[in-house]
Amino acid sequence: MGKLSFLFNPKSIAIVGVSEDPAKLGSVILSNLTEAKYRGEIYPVNPKYKELFGFKTYAKVSDIKEDVDCVVIVIPAGLVPEVLEDCGKKKVKAAIVISAGFKEVGPVGEELEKRLSDIARKYNIRIMGPNCLGQIVPKYKVNLSFAASHPLEGDVAFLSQSGAFCTAILDMSLDKNLGFSHFVSFGNKIDLNENDLVEDWLEDDNVKVIGGYLEEVDAGLDLVEIYKEGNAKKPMIILKPGESKQAQAAMSSHTGSLAGSSEVFKTAMRQAGITIAKDVNQMFNLMMGFSWAKVPEGKRVAIITNAGGPGIIATDEIIKSGLEMAQISEESTAAMKAILPPNASLHNPIDVIGDALAERYKAPIDILMKDENVDIVLVVLTPQLVTQIEDTAKLIINSAKLANKPIYAVFLGGKYVNFGLQRLYDDRIPAFNDIDQAVDVISAMQKYGDFKQAVRKGKNLFNDLIDEKLEQGKYRKEVMEAYESSKSGTELALSEELTSKIAAEVGLDLPQYLTLKASPSTLGEFKDFGKKHYPVVLKTPADVIAHKTDKKAIYLNIKSDKELESAYTELVEMIQKDMKIKSPNLILQEQITGAKEILIGVKRDGGANVYTGRKGGFGHLMTFGTGGIYTEIYHDVGFALVPSSREEILDTLKTTKIYKIIDGARGLAKLNEKAMLDAIESIQKLVVYYPEISSIDLNPVLLNEKRAVCVDLKFFVGK
Amino acid sequence: MGKLSFLFNPKSIAIVGVSEDPAKLGSVILSNLTEAKYRGEIYPVNPKYKELFGFKTYAKVSDIKEDVDCVVIVIPAGLVPEVLEDCGKKKVKAAIVISAGFKEVGPVGEELEKRLSDIARKYNIRIMGPNCLGQIVPKYKVNLSFAASHPLEGDVAFLSQSGAFCTAILDMSLDKNLGFSHFVSFGNKIDLNENDLVEDWLEDDNVKVIGGYLEEVDAGLDLVEIYKEGNAKKPMIILKPGESKQAQAAMSSHTGSLAGSSEVFKTAMRQAGITIAKDVNQMFNLMMGFSWAKVPEGKRVAIITNAGGPGIIATDEIIKSGLEMAQISEESTAAMKAILPPNASLHNPIDVIGDALAERYKAPIDILMKDENVDIVLVVLTPQLVTQIEDTAKLIINSAKLANKPIYAVFLGGKYVNFGLQRLYDDRIPAFNDIDQAVDVISAMQKYGDFKQAVRKGKNLFNDLIDEKLEQGKYRKEVMEAYESSKSGTELALSEELTSKIAAEVGLDLPQYLTLKASPSTLGEFKDFGKKHYPVVLKTPADVIAHKTDKKAIYLNIKSDKELESAYTELVEMIQKDMKIKSPNLILQEQITGAKEILIGVKRDGGANVYTGRKGGFGHLMTFGTGGIYTEIYHDVGFALVPSSREEILDTLKTTKIYKIIDGARGLAKLNEKAMLDAIESIQKLVVYYPEISSIDLNPVLLNEKRAVCVDLKFFVGK
Repeated sequence: MGKLSFLFNPKSIAIVGVSEDPAKLGSVILSNLTEAKYRGEIYPVNPKYKELFGFKTYAKVSDIKEDVDCVVIVIPAGLVPEVLEDCGKKKVKAAIVISAGFKEVGPVGEELEKRLSDIARKYNIRIMGPNCLGQIVPKYKVNLSFAASHPLEGDVAFLSQSGAFCTAILDMSLDKNLGFSHFVSFGNKIDLNENDLVEDWLEDDNVKVIGGYLEEVDAGLDLVEIYKEGNAKKPMIILKPGESKQAQAAMSSHTGSLAGSSEVFKTAMRQAGITIAKDVNQMFNLMMGFSWAKVPEGKRVAIITNAGGPGIIATDEIIKSGLEMAQISEESTAAMKAILPPNASLHNPIDVIGDALAERYKAPIDILMKDENVDIVLVVLTPQLVTQIEDTAKLIINSAKLANKPIYAVFLGGKYVNFGLQRLYDDRIPAFNDIDQAVDVISAMQKYGDFKQAVRKGKNLFNDLIDEKLEQGKYRKEVMEAYESSKSGTELALSEELTSKIAAEVGLDLPQYLTLKASPSTLGEFKDFGKKHYPVVLKTPADVIAHKTDKKAIYLNIKSDKELESAYTELVEMIQKDMKIKSPNLILQEQITGAKEILIGVKRDGGANVYTGRKGGFGHLMTFGTGGIYTEIYHDVGFALVPSSREEILDTLKTTKIYKIIDGARGLAKLNEKAMLDAIESIQKLVVYYPEISSIDLNPVLLNEKRAVCVDLKFFVGK
Repeated sequence: MGKLSFLFNPKSIAIVGVSEDPAKLGSVILSNLTEAKYRGEIYPVNPKYKELFGFKTYAKVSDIKEDVDCVVIVIPAGLVPEVLEDCGKKKVKAAIVISAGFKEVGPVGEELEKRLSDIARKYNIRIMGPNCLGQIVPKYKVNLSFAASHPLEGDVAFLSQSGAFCTAILDMSLDKNLGFSHFVSFGNKIDLNENDLVEDWLEDDNVKVIGGYLEEVDAGLDLVEIYKEGNAKKPMIILKPGESKQAQAAMSSHTGSLAGSSEVFKTAMRQAGITIAKDVNQMFNLMMGFSWAKVPEGKRVAIITNAGGPGIIATDEIIKSGLEMAQISEESTAAMKAILPPNASLHNPIDVIGDALAERYKAPIDILMKDENVDIVLVVLTPQLVTQIEDTAKLIINSAKLANKPIYAVFLGGKYVNFGLQRLYDDRIPAFNDIDQAVDVISAMQKYGDFKQAVRKGKNLFNDLIDEKLEQGKYRKEVMEAYESSKSGTELALSEELTSKIAAEVGLDLPQYLTLKASPSTLGEFKDFGKKHYPVVLKTPADVIAHKTDKKAIYLNIKSDKELESAYTELVEMIQKDMKIKSPNLILQEQITGAKEILIGVKRDGGANVYTGRKGGFGHLMTFGTGGIYTEIYHDVGFALVPSSREEILDTLKTTKIYKIIDGARGLAKLNEKAMLDAIESIQKLVVYYPEISSIDLNPVLLNEKRAVCVDLKFFVGK
């Protein structure tokens, strides 16, 4: 029990807005609290009554003589500030504002919210809400919500920005017997947000699993840090809708949220080790799985089934999800062969055959539970003529209780298998009537287990770049000037000169070049440059001839003084003749040969103060992968947050398709992976030096066997 | 009612293998049949008894004096041939062989199966099975299965290769009130297979939807033809597992099936307009949706919900699935505004707000049902404090019955929403407790509707290439020789010469080249060739210098006689000096400029007689997309069956990423799409001329603004 015990386990509670009508929300909350058998003091508040439902009733909170830990406020929005002010004076520690009519209704509500925040800060009251369903903590008999039912007690701590989402999860949990340590709807979360709750719950021994529905993440980087500092010690599942523009529009009219990019969210969750749920049922199933089953120690699944077809479907799903089909050991196979009927299939999926009674599952379950080649057991049952649905459920329950590996059940069907499923739920065995859903849960749990193991073995996903005492960038003043002059909502490109200087500062590899005006001595100087850099490219600056290749104003692959001289002469003559320029500017540049075009990009989530202010945003998201004209064709990129470790960047790079080329696909020469990683590290340093830089576009970076040369750089600042 | 009425609606039935033990399968089938209230004659057969369960019992089928339409056989496998022979003599029309112990147990069983087939052919008996659960036809009170329950009557015709799969679907259907016209488990399908049943069901007015679980498709091309000839007049859904190697292995030990390539299956289904289900629940949901709801006429969905969060999640799912969020008309918005509370959200998703009673859903449903901008209505309900779950269900039922658009419901939750869901199922409204599942069904139904409309408007997915009286290929003899000499299981490459001749025959565009031995007249001849084809490439044949580019034995981009002369001189000198060859062979070839590398490939599914024998396989599958070294990097390809229409090939090509380049992405020149389509058409002609060709690999095809030049061709024959 952490810093929020006055909220989750208050000694006394006042409810502002109870009335004589039992159907009104204030009264519903009072009855929920008494039904929950709350053991502390309860003070209804309403100036119209002296007594309500047998409780002495107060005109205002400050009329209560005793200390009040927590106040629930269920009155029209406009009246809330006054009540909160009164709570402040009374030294109330927490207020749960159920009332709606704030940010979600527009500017007037937003103004009201600000007033609440100000009052809360003034009196140091923590606020939950407004516009929420309230909170329930079964263990402490606290139900400060207008939920239609009471959640069961358990070890899942659940938070939600949507009250309706809560009611759906609650109804599911009553059907399937999932219990909660905390059940919190925090609505517009003007004060207490996911970070406060997660921080508390990571330390709370009553909590085994954290689940959350979030429409926006308040302070992303903080969330990642809070969670990863616990080394993923508890599984956490988040559902965050709003991938589509249409959903984002709906969201903003719902809770007034502004959705961030879904890529940065997904990347942050992956790197933090937080599981993403894609919809309501999956969210529920994941909480159930993590609450009830052991986290798998590997990805090898053994299937036991009475049904060939569904066994095959399950096999497909397992492979598709990235899990593996276990190679049953010879000992196990022999042991099962001695017991199972001759027509049983002993190759995974183990088919105990359609006429299997419950007893026939026992041996294979027990044998596979002991098999070192098996990490996970999945029982898939169909309701055939003699199938003992309930008895098989009981047998699975008994085996699961004694096992040190997770066991999951899929009972396919409806009317009759439901009895078996109910039994499994009653004993808190993760069970499903859908193969897909089961494999989703198994796979997510296995990935979490994998992540946890990697972290335990010392894998760093992030580096300490931000926390290091970095000397500030040399060109801070110039960057700040550009930043200050940028208009909110639009980005401003840094000058070519400043871009080059910053690139050099952080160690990006830029192409060597020499720009000279044509004169009698030019060819000699070019030759000197050429000797160091052949092959080289001779060209004119962009302003001289727009489409270089059309007019033969670019000479590629010049490999000797002789070739240079001939190209130089031809080009100068052409310009003098066609363009009537007597002494044109010319550029001689080293040519990067044997290179592939790579993209490195960065986009900031949140403001320029994201690494210091820590409010809003996940920081800079890096993108890298296939570049050049193929960038938009193949969308072949990986994402990583700044500051990622080199190991994590490489792992991410390996998920791209271009990596096969970097790694020397089809006998091609390997490209310089190290140079590529160095470039990405330079970029990380760059945005931490200059967080005002809101986006970077290096495309293409020419990666060959030796170097990663940035031939086209664009840095933007933005607010 | 089609050709199979003696099977689905038999006048008389004998059951071979009934015994006095009511738990034995034969007796279970007898009791299922009597429980179903079958109205025809029933003859139990077992030499040990005179009477069983009140029925006169016969020693063998031929002892029955009256005609027998259908015999069910439930005796050990080894005894089946003798009984079938007896049935044949008795002129029985159909036999359902329930017994297992055939192909699925190995060679001995396979041999037995062959004997059954022979007997069936000899006496013209149609066989269902062996190794099956049997069949049920509720309308005709026929239950010739050992299923544990009786399916309800309805309009879904269901077939399955797995009996266990049937039991799961049946149990689901009892829970959710889905009814069947036919419910068939045909096991090893040695005679009656999916094609026979589909053909019958497409003509049967009692059938609205066809669903099937298949582990292997017997005669793929036939299935496609049977179904597409009906112009997709009934929706059909198939679940076929076995994408993963592991699942294929499990399958072969289950029913002895050999899975084909999953790509060819998916492509055939897409082109035929058959819906693929990915797992058991989705299969069930799709049958339910198609049976109960109207097929949408467009993709614009309007959501009505009492819950902001779930409305947003549903929006995301809809967009992800390819459906659209309807733009509600101004009239509808105004009409809803007049009725709904002020805080309701009138922008799709329509949020009627958490305190909505059932009545509040009525106006938006009715208004949106009439809105011309809306094709589909989806109601998403969560169980909030005052939510009237059952009443809302009733209201949806009433609206759905009067509507000319499909309406779907999602009730999120468990314990309490189940009452509402049950009501919806009772009235056969497609309902779900999962957003994902609902959107899957809506999207599949919309895609089917779309397909049907396109076909109705005259879209051809296939062309008539196969049916045309094609002159046989000119090089038939040589190809057949190669084919005959190829070993089963391995492919044989056709010679370079034959490959070139066939390529020219079907009109593939090959690069021009000239091969000459260096001699005093060579340069002159090369110049003549050059004049016609500049730019050209000068090189040595592969055997002279293995790694051409290393040794500077290839000269690219030769654009004039002068450049040709200089390259020729250098190359000949180098070879004479380094290789000590006085008169080397040299190749001058036209250079294809500005080209992208494309892949065109073909792989045959089934044998060389696939277009004539029509047993086994879908024919040739074409693959086309990104070629060159990127083929295996990006896996950017589309698939189409031979013979596809040009329109279908172009539509498929448009699904690839390289198409953006072909179409002139980023201001690049458009490549010659027509030449690409011509090349694919040539390839189609080629494999129909020479079906012995088992695979083709054209990689790369150089596609530029003018031509699609096949610079690397490989044709293989195989059995």
